[in-house]
Amino acid sequence: MTPTTISTDADVATLINVFTVAPEKQQALVKVLTTATEEVIGHRPGYVSANIHASTDGTRVVNYAQWTSAEALQAMFADPECQEHMSAALALAECEPHLYTVESVHHA
Amino acid sequence: MTPTTISTDADVATLINVFTVAPEKQQALVKVLTTATEEVIGHRPGYVSANIHASTDGTRVVNYAQWTSAEALQAMFADPECQEHMSAALALAECEPHLYTVESVHHA
Repeated sequence: MTPTTISTDADVATLINVFTVAPEKQQALVKVLTTATEEVIGHRPGYVSANIHASTDGTRVVNYAQWTSAEALQAMFADPECQEHMSAALALAECEPHLYTVESVHHA
Repeated sequence: MTPTTISTDADVATLINVFTVAPEKQQALVKVLTTATEEVIGHRPGYVSANIHASTDGTRVVNYAQWTSAEALQAMFADPECQEHMSAALALAECEPHLYTVESVHHA
């Protein structure tokens, strides 16, 4: 599988969505987000990738996602079927989505 | 330049550090983090990569960073020279660092 790459050159809109969650619900949230991506969101126009992360302290889940454009991302957020899956996630956690540009990339 | 890749197989500890910032200070914070990475943090043992993101609404900066291990990351946080650079960032913003594992990766 092609890995997700982070680059200042990549022509993508980056969504970093930070979920604050109770540790006992963290793995349930990971499953909801994984299922939502595989079954619905990952089939929407403009979807590039999604990467679900769990914090080692149990209190956060982060989705690092890439879309072809901010417009494609907005269309997904407005889609009723996607909203249904997002409601399932929001029943488990609070979320804070922001759209980002990659400013600089550094390597050892 | 090798891009940063996100993978469930990668043997790295992932730090996602979310900075909450006033929009008029966002670009100054990007510069402080870029300089800190290039001059100090990027030369510490165990550093793999850092990727500085700015939210399009101006209110967040995210550093998506990879280290060879949680121990290497903790050693960096404890290093006085690194702390000095982090103080410069914390004069501009509040930060919320968490260590993560990659749970699942999805692609179009």
